[in-house]
Amino acid sequence: MHTDFAHLQKRLPAWLEESRQLAEHGKVAGYIPGLARAPLRRLGISLHSITGEQLAAGECGAAFTLQSISKVFSLLLALMDRGEQGVFEKVGMEPTGDDFNSMLKLELVEPGKPFNPLINAGAIAVASLIRGDGPAEKSARLLDLIRTVAGDATIGWNEEVYRSESATAHRNRSLAYFLKDNAVLDDEVEPTLEVYFRQCAIEVNCGQLARMGLVLASGGKDPRSGSELIPRRYVQIAKTFMITCGMYNASGEFAIQVGIPAKSGVSGGILALVPGELGIGLVGPALNDKGNSVAGVHLLQTLSRQYDWSMF
Amino acid sequence: MHTDFAHLQKRLPAWLEESRQLAEHGKVAGYIPGLARAPLRRLGISLHSITGEQLAAGECGAAFTLQSISKVFSLLLALMDRGEQGVFEKVGMEPTGDDFNSMLKLELVEPGKPFNPLINAGAIAVASLIRGDGPAEKSARLLDLIRTVAGDATIGWNEEVYRSESATAHRNRSLAYFLKDNAVLDDEVEPTLEVYFRQCAIEVNCGQLARMGLVLASGGKDPRSGSELIPRRYVQIAKTFMITCGMYNASGEFAIQVGIPAKSGVSGGILALVPGELGIGLVGPALNDKGNSVAGVHLLQTLSRQYDWSMF
Amino acid sequence: MHTDFAHLQKRLPAWLEESRQLAEHGKVAGYIPGLARAPLRRLGISLHSITGEQLAAGECGAAFTLQSISKVFSLLLALMDRGEQGVFEKVGMEPTGDDFNSMLKLELVEPGKPFNPLINAGAIAVASLIRGDGPAEKSARLLDLIRTVAGDATIGWNEEVYRSESATAHRNRSLAYFLKDNAVLDDEVEPTLEVYFRQCAIEVNCGQLARMGLVLASGGKDPRSGSELIPRRYVQIAKTFMITCGMYNASGEFAIQVGIPAKSGVSGGILALVPGELGIGLVGPALNDKGNSVAGVHLLQTLSRQYDWSMF
Amino acid sequence: MHTDFAHLQKRLPAWLEESRQLAEHGKVAGYIPGLARAPLRRLGISLHSITGEQLAAGECGAAFTLQSISKVFSLLLALMDRGEQGVFEKVGMEPTGDDFNSMLKLELVEPGKPFNPLINAGAIAVASLIRGDGPAEKSARLLDLIRTVAGDATIGWNEEVYRSESATAHRNRSLAYFLKDNAVLDDEVEPTLEVYFRQCAIEVNCGQLARMGLVLASGGKDPRSGSELIPRRYVQIAKTFMITCGMYNASGEFAIQVGIPAKSGVSGGILALVPGELGIGLVGPALNDKGNSVAGVHLLQTLSRQYDWSMF
Repeated sequence: MHTDFAHLQKRLPAWLEESRQLAEHGKVAGYIPGLARAPLRRLGISLHSITGEQLAAGECGAAFTLQSISKVFSLLLALMDRGEQGVFEKVGMEPTGDDFNSMLKLELVEPGKPFNPLINAGAIAVASLIRGDGPAEKSARLLDLIRTVAGDATIGWNEEVYRSESATAHRNRSLAYFLKDNAVLDDEVEPTLEVYFRQCAIEVNCGQLARMGLVLASGGKDPRSGSELIPRRYVQIAKTFMITCGMYNASGEFAIQVGIPAKSGVSGGILALVPGELGIGLVGPALNDKGNSVAGVHLLQTLSRQYDWSMF
Repeated sequence: MHTDFAHLQKRLPAWLEESRQLAEHGKVAGYIPGLARAPLRRLGISLHSITGEQLAAGECGAAFTLQSISKVFSLLLALMDRGEQGVFEKVGMEPTGDDFNSMLKLELVEPGKPFNPLINAGAIAVASLIRGDGPAEKSARLLDLIRTVAGDATIGWNEEVYRSESATAHRNRSLAYFLKDNAVLDDEVEPTLEVYFRQCAIEVNCGQLARMGLVLASGGKDPRSGSELIPRRYVQIAKTFMITCGMYNASGEFAIQVGIPAKSGVSGGILALVPGELGIGLVGPALNDKGNSVAGVHLLQTLSRQYDWSMF
Repeated sequence: MHTDFAHLQKRLPAWLEESRQLAEHGKVAGYIPGLARAPLRRLGISLHSITGEQLAAGECGAAFTLQSISKVFSLLLALMDRGEQGVFEKVGMEPTGDDFNSMLKLELVEPGKPFNPLINAGAIAVASLIRGDGPAEKSARLLDLIRTVAGDATIGWNEEVYRSESATAHRNRSLAYFLKDNAVLDDEVEPTLEVYFRQCAIEVNCGQLARMGLVLASGGKDPRSGSELIPRRYVQIAKTFMITCGMYNASGEFAIQVGIPAKSGVSGGILALVPGELGIGLVGPALNDKGNSVAGVHLLQTLSRQYDWSMF
Repeated sequence: MHTDFAHLQKRLPAWLEESRQLAEHGKVAGYIPGLARAPLRRLGISLHSITGEQLAAGECGAAFTLQSISKVFSLLLALMDRGEQGVFEKVGMEPTGDDFNSMLKLELVEPGKPFNPLINAGAIAVASLIRGDGPAEKSARLLDLIRTVAGDATIGWNEEVYRSESATAHRNRSLAYFLKDNAVLDDEVEPTLEVYFRQCAIEVNCGQLARMGLVLASGGKDPRSGSELIPRRYVQIAKTFMITCGMYNASGEFAIQVGIPAKSGVSGGILALVPGELGIGLVGPALNDKGNSVAGVHLLQTLSRQYDWSMF
């Protein structure tokens, strides 16, 4: 175990305030009201250790939507539902270097399947692989998984955000029809997108997110009971994607500078983990130009350097 | 007048049969039954001269859908409805070198407006500019224009083709949502696409198409009465686009090898014209790899060389 | 004949001054001193009619280098040396919609040959097709053609510009090695580039350029003697490319707004012509963001509208 | 320590023979004779453990050139010479999803610096950062580092391969001039490429490569003496890039399927390591369509699954 919790407890508030200053250089996502209302300078972090310790600092109680962070769990559920082969015949394993909503590689690289499950095109393809009788059941099954992993049955959807996403998501519809044209989607576009928009609108706080990270850090086991919630191999796959593609097209830089599996969302949330050690939930709505929480990335980098978290 | 009609009448059947041989190297569009049923070796041509002469050869009576040829007339109607400025703030004037359904330049080149009105993205944007209270009225107004230009009030839509296009057009939906996301479309996607799919499904024969070409060759005037059907400047714009972008991404080659304004469709139809002289309607469903009638292009090249048709 | 020379003579100075105002919105090419020294507000135009009339206005005596305008004549010489087949197996016929020095389509579209002879990659390929024992002879043969067409044996190279181009042309070297890798160039890179840089550095004035345009407007014939300087078919090919690709990736817009064959250069020169009627030489060093003379394009548009020059 | 060496010793020959069968589905690089001569079915592997054990199987004594594997060590030397900031102002940290010799992102993504140091463009930029008075000294310094890390002062260049690479590397020259144009290269192109071609031509065998891997697995320390050969932070950076970009545009898949830092070369060599445990050197000249040793990747996947090597 790298991290000295007593030391961390003392230093965390100051580090957080230092990182919070960077929020001024970022921008809150403004394309829907449910995101645009978030305070620019909000910054909260929660850390859960495998030995049962918990720490928090900043605005930790604030609720925010998972957005792209949900892609990790839809991937896990699709893997549980379809197996590796079933998932990877529809979506690839490669980072792209392009924007999360880019269509370039879909058009340029045969056979037009999404490069990985963490870009939007890939996540839409993954959403279509979740089993269930219609979008309501699929969405409910994914929410169930997230409740289980977060250890909190009260987690739900933010209906306003769901409706706003659905109303404004022209680019995601464009991606989905492109996939449909390439025969990557077997389902119809709108029911698939309903699942996708619902998963983006699942609402959590930092503590719940830290617990979700801790389950991944534990290789898929319930941190208390030790029982398997998600097969270890699928967690391994998810953690690998979090390193190679988790932070949009700044994933490579994050791997060099922080070096731990992480997934960000446009709400400013970041799910991160130190394998075998820590789950981390963070929110900081001010985004940098790659779409990651500017203060959040800075804080994780500070912690990683301080406690030598890099896996590499 | 370059073309000796007496000479042409004698030679045309042999030239047509020679070009027909090339159909073996092409393929009939197979994505919907209404196109796939067309005979591979069908080839028909009709020529109407400004002096009132008419010639035809091959399977000229066969009906086929306009498909992309309709883009010329939706552009003309949008220009009549909105003026040059109204149209060109939504769609550009440049050839692309890309496939007709490509999204590359929409993503790569700011501000994401379609490069020209004859690629699919541009034609969808143009369809949204036609005035009318809903898609039915817009479609009816475009059909009216085409009936007027063709001088035949019996022209209508092929309902089967319309329904098939609408059911399978995932790529066009993808393009339309991309445009919506870029604020190029003010209307909703589905009503806009209804206009677009309907225009593609307008059914003509070679004679009607030749008459349409003759109106363009006459600068927009009714060839008999001399009255203006379309303002001359808009016809000039249309003819320019037919040279620079009319034959998909083989437009440059067609300009070099044939040198006259033309627009092709996936049905194998080609609308062409010799300015001030001739309107030409042609159908040959076997397409080359750029999507143009392989026999039709060959026949036009033969005629252009024989009678020195090139504008250049 | 559309153009009333007496009327034009009276009005031209005022139109030129009006267009000159636009120079403020452009920028003189600054990458080499030989270009950067040109005055921003310089504007000169010369018109030669097929009936022997000549008109000039503005700073017509100023010398400037042909730059990309030379691509028209290297294409003509390569066609005379190799025939259509010999040229078009190395370079295509399609406009690209990309920047003149783009490598995108070379990488993305098989088999990696340049899309047309008027983008840099295509012009480098064309330069390699000119016959001659080494770059000096090739360059001399091209200069000879230009002297003949301009009717002026005193035309030569600007050695300073040649040396500067050669010293700074990293992007063109990059393009040339890319072509070499794709087996489009049979010659070595540096001797080919020497020919290319020399052709760009040929120095003319507006009157000489107008005479060059007049030869093209006459279908390749000497406007005085009527003897053939360039085969008519090759001139036809050149004029077609000038319409589809002559004004960089604003060629489509120029075709719509002006409608005559033209080729621009980074020196602010424009060679244009009204087929069967006029040759035009123009210089205006202030360039718009597409690389064309901002005042020059405006002046040509004024004249085209006034005298109905559009071919379409 | 995951790997049971006694068990491995017994099973390795059979696993190697099984993987060797896959060589039939690959192709030996044929662009220069020095690579083309390598036997298609060659397969050799050497493993050095941190506890001093060594194992080998197959054709382990065969010499082969490092090719792209050298990029790891030129990066390390450049980091030692210039520091992180000095390197990363010239080259990025992101995987691309494109071919190793692609120019797309250089043209499309501002400001045109290479996305990472393991694609060709990035490695050329890195080569220019190595300190030394001219290419000979730079090359000698890099060879020295490799000799030190391999623990073998007899390692040298394959002069024939060096000369062939230099003679045929039109695409790399194209990349280098593109970088020069973008001001990424401060040095001249040819001296920079001399360093780059020389590093590619360094000749090793599997045992030497395994020793190089072991130094990286040890965080930069000499495995015997424990003295620091390379600063630990720079080794961390190198290992991170090996995960995100080490196996061309199959790096993501390799991370999912094998999960250890690795770097492949067009000679069929692969340098790999299990952090804190093992260095691995491997050669199998038959390449898959991504450019990686087809048998080698299969063998590493077998071993990783057997001994649970994945870092994730």
